[in-house]
Amino acid sequence: MSPIGEEIYVLRNMRRALFGEPLPTHRQSHERLSNLAALAVFASDGLSSVAYATEEILLVLVLAGPAALRMSVPVAFAIVALIAIVATSYRQVVQAYPSGGGAYAVAFENLGRLPGLVAASALMIDYALTVAVSVASGVAAITSAFPDLYGYRVAIGVLCIAVVAWANLRGARESARVFMVPTYGFVGLLLLTIVVGLFRQARGMGPVMELPTQSDIAVTQAFTMFLVLRAFASGCAALTGLEAVSNGVQAFKEPVARNASRVMTWLAVLLGVLFLGITVLVSHLHVVPLHHETVVSQITRATFGRAPLYYGVQFFTAVILILAANTSFNGFPRLASVVAADGYLPRQLTMLGDRLVFANGIVLLGAVSAILLAGFGGQTHRLIPLYAVGVFVSFTLAQAGLVVHWRKLRETEADWKRRAAINACGAVVTAVVALVIAATKFTHGAWIVLIVMPALIHMMLRIRRHYHAVDAHLSLEGVEPPPPVRNLVVVLVGSVHRGMLKAVRYAASLAADEDAVRAVHIETESDRPRRSLTEAWDRFGLGIRLVVLKTDYRNLYEPLEDYIREVLADGVYDCVTLVLPEFVVHRWWEQILHNQTALRLHVAFHNTPGVVIANFRYYL
Amino acid sequence: MSPIGEEIYVLRNMRRALFGEPLPTHRQSHERLSNLAALAVFASDGLSSVAYATEEILLVLVLAGPAALRMSVPVAFAIVALIAIVATSYRQVVQAYPSGGGAYAVAFENLGRLPGLVAASALMIDYALTVAVSVASGVAAITSAFPDLYGYRVAIGVLCIAVVAWANLRGARESARVFMVPTYGFVGLLLLTIVVGLFRQARGMGPVMELPTQSDIAVTQAFTMFLVLRAFASGCAALTGLEAVSNGVQAFKEPVARNASRVMTWLAVLLGVLFLGITVLVSHLHVVPLHHETVVSQITRATFGRAPLYYGVQFFTAVILILAANTSFNGFPRLASVVAADGYLPRQLTMLGDRLVFANGIVLLGAVSAILLAGFGGQTHRLIPLYAVGVFVSFTLAQAGLVVHWRKLRETEADWKRRAAINACGAVVTAVVALVIAATKFTHGAWIVLIVMPALIHMMLRIRRHYHAVDAHLSLEGVEPPPPVRNLVVVLVGSVHRGMLKAVRYAASLAADEDAVRAVHIETESDRPRRSLTEAWDRFGLGIRLVVLKTDYRNLYEPLEDYIREVLADGVYDCVTLVLPEFVVHRWWEQILHNQTALRLHVAFHNTPGVVIANFRYYL
Repeated sequence: MSPIGEEIYVLRNMRRALFGEPLPTHRQSHERLSNLAALAVFASDGLSSVAYATEEILLVLVLAGPAALRMSVPVAFAIVALIAIVATSYRQVVQAYPSGGGAYAVAFENLGRLPGLVAASALMIDYALTVAVSVASGVAAITSAFPDLYGYRVAIGVLCIAVVAWANLRGARESARVFMVPTYGFVGLLLLTIVVGLFRQARGMGPVMELPTQSDIAVTQAFTMFLVLRAFASGCAALTGLEAVSNGVQAFKEPVARNASRVMTWLAVLLGVLFLGITVLVSHLHVVPLHHETVVSQITRATFGRAPLYYGVQFFTAVILILAANTSFNGFPRLASVVAADGYLPRQLTMLGDRLVFANGIVLLGAVSAILLAGFGGQTHRLIPLYAVGVFVSFTLAQAGLVVHWRKLRETEADWKRRAAINACGAVVTAVVALVIAATKFTHGAWIVLIVMPALIHMMLRIRRHYHAVDAHLSLEGVEPPPPVRNLVVVLVGSVHRGMLKAVRYAASLAADEDAVRAVHIETESDRPRRSLTEAWDRFGLGIRLVVLKTDYRNLYEPLEDYIREVLADGVYDCVTLVLPEFVVHRWWEQILHNQTALRLHVAFHNTPGVVIANFRYYL
Repeated sequence: MSPIGEEIYVLRNMRRALFGEPLPTHRQSHERLSNLAALAVFASDGLSSVAYATEEILLVLVLAGPAALRMSVPVAFAIVALIAIVATSYRQVVQAYPSGGGAYAVAFENLGRLPGLVAASALMIDYALTVAVSVASGVAAITSAFPDLYGYRVAIGVLCIAVVAWANLRGARESARVFMVPTYGFVGLLLLTIVVGLFRQARGMGPVMELPTQSDIAVTQAFTMFLVLRAFASGCAALTGLEAVSNGVQAFKEPVARNASRVMTWLAVLLGVLFLGITVLVSHLHVVPLHHETVVSQITRATFGRAPLYYGVQFFTAVILILAANTSFNGFPRLASVVAADGYLPRQLTMLGDRLVFANGIVLLGAVSAILLAGFGGQTHRLIPLYAVGVFVSFTLAQAGLVVHWRKLRETEADWKRRAAINACGAVVTAVVALVIAATKFTHGAWIVLIVMPALIHMMLRIRRHYHAVDAHLSLEGVEPPPPVRNLVVVLVGSVHRGMLKAVRYAASLAADEDAVRAVHIETESDRPRRSLTEAWDRFGLGIRLVVLKTDYRNLYEPLEDYIREVLADGVYDCVTLVLPEFVVHRWWEQILHNQTALRLHVAFHNTPGVVIANFRYYL
């Protein structure tokens, strides 16, 4: 093995140390989860949003002054009602598509291509935003506990994304054990906080630690219905992740549909209880949203003080939010591979990597979400206006699709009218909410999504059209076998030396006969005598014709291109194979000392029709 | 022409707009300059150093308090004496090497290889530092006049370097006209400043504008002999560029040697007068070195106020300093090409670009000097300790070389003893100065140069050894023509389509017989039926054998490599030509949608011995 070969092995070993040994294809397997484990796995995304949803409501209401904050509880009740509607509707998605359809498949199948692509683009945007928002919020839980880290929040966030992406590239399976401790830890500690906090309030006990007062809040907006709607729209972030169960039905034990819809109900109940509990406690404690400390951190601090329990809540909050980001790293590559398999995204998104994961999708999601996170300064509040539009668009399309689905089944499914009615109700409600979100948060960032979504759809349609055109062009329909190729082999000769003799011999082996191979030398300086070259050629030329091209310039490409163009124009040959000899040296730095000419010509000729480049390497 | 071809033409046209049409080789010409024009061309580097030399002396002396500043005039006298000695000695370099030897050639020829490489590395370092120091100082002249720009000095400096590099890549000839106005403008205005300033002092007139007082200077060091020597060492920056004439003797009119040594004298006199005049005026005006304003700016402001003349001096100072940087962009690529032609630097430094300039050397110098400038925060004062060591090392070696040169000529040159004595004196003095500079500025940055110089020399020796080994290896001495190559052509088949048929036909045209070509298909998923492929193959296979390789993994490289390894191990063939079919699409973004497999395999196989890769492209 050559030393260069060894370097390749070093690189390969490094890659394997980082990402693990390649796995054979048959190792693809599906874990079946108990309902308790499944809840832990699929709930992290949905439940984690309670870490920021209440805060987002407050941040809108506070614009109209402290008095407006009391509207937070009614808004929360409206959102809980919405959770109930969506969950009921999605129970039916789970039952109708036990194979785990997701909004893209449901919309595509029942409503047609365009709604399908709308759902796909909405979902993809939301996957990226889930990562950015969850990580930003998880980092906020950490910096609330350790304020010194606030200045490093973007760096910490990008690092978190990189670690999650790396774990997914290694092919971290959604092992239930990894999820159960933080999910149930988070739920348990947060419930404890709510119960203890509300109990202390009921007993008239003040907070353990004083929270900042509300005296210095500037009123910048009037308290209008629009503001309340905007608060509602912001709080709708609580619903993100609710659909995760419907994408993973296959992971449940039999009877799949019944178990999945049961877990869906549990998730909705837990989500509603936690969200409402936090909002009520926040309201009782007169919490004000702060820049440097989250609302959850404030209520926990007021309830327990800076005790270990407080740090426990912050820790589990951060972990569950990172796990929520991880959910997107499972969902996005899978969705992208399905859409790509349908021809609407680049095909390499369908390729399973060494570790049986869609590596390209993981890298793409990591890059986009890191850019989002950094671009919005790592602040949850600035990302939220972009969020949730996509979620509600996909909710609407999935449920509208299901209405059509039930109608199709009207012959076999006795209950189809009731089922269709439930989904129709869900579709209408979520459509209205999507409009409310888009309208109230339009100027705050939702407009970006409303530009990106059509752009994505346009791109997907163009990609599909391209693949379609290629397929049509390559089709074998009515094609006769092409005629044999008449190929001229041209080997570029700089000077005559040992390696060059081998290159010439190689070139000769490619030619059909002695006429079909030529050595070409380009003479750049007219004053240099070329006797030594021709003499050496005569001695070693191996019977191959030497063509000397003269040029007034130093660029080798143009005289060579002119020559090849002439050859092809003559019509004797319809293809030229250009053999470019190259050194292979022992050390990487020696590479810098050679092969400039071959590399430059390779790049220059790469797009010249009728020319095939063959790199002949000789080893020193 | 394919659309991709058009894109190539667009790129080419853009490059030509930026750098100009390629020039034929015979257009290389040498301008002959009158002495007045030659002085302007070669003086910019030497004279420009007066813009910072006095300031550097003050910046050292001021550490011992305001009283120490009076030592600046004696130090300046010592430096003027040094200028006289070096100039006298270099007049003889000009006479001995009218072909324009430079320190590298003189040292190499007379003292041997190692001294030659020492001189070369010293000169290359100093070329880079000349650019960085001159541009930093030129920018300081601008920011002195417009203090608001001070914060942008690094960006302005890097932009200046980029513009000078670009102008040189275009092949800006050292047109005398470009140089005469700023050089003589600078000299004239500076002389006027000195004369008017000293006249006002003699008449007891105070400065037109008050300068900052010296009351608040903290004394941080004792006033020792070492400090005076350090001040002297810093002031020696004044001598940089004095040797420029000796590198360009060929540009003079006949009698070349006489004219060049005459201009050498003029340059030394002008340099001495300007440097001494500035230092004396500075001393009379009790100027203190400031962070935000140069010393030259201060004396000009004190003499003329913020009048147009003041801005004129600042402007011409900036311009002559940029021209000094330009001198390095002429010198460095030329030196590098000579050293590279001797085999001590990468050969591509010898290649004349489209515009008859050594483009690689220009880009290299631009990059290194921009990194230096940015790395040292764009501050002249921080770069100065690295400067001048190299200059004096090259002075010493050039003159020591000349002593040997005169001894060689002792038969023919009657006057050889006097000449050798002059150069010996110069060599000893400059060697002592080099030691003083290295010792006094060691901790302030000279150590960097004393590490980089040996590292460069080591690198040059290794490069030479490598080229030598390659030459020996490739030598045709006693070589018999190599045996004919037995080549197997392997064409990779993903699926059967129109383009693939052409690729297979092409592959067949390369093979010596029907046995020597095989189509290889890699079946990655054992569950996928391959009937469609084999059926299509039988219909269109063109009589070529299809080999199906099965793999449990998704990576195509390893099964293919195993197959090729087996084929080569059989001993029937000693070379495999791997034909990789590739799409060529119409738009750049479509490229992203294809060819991932071909690209990955190309990279993976690039270093596999015995495999030649031929990219067959089919156009859609």
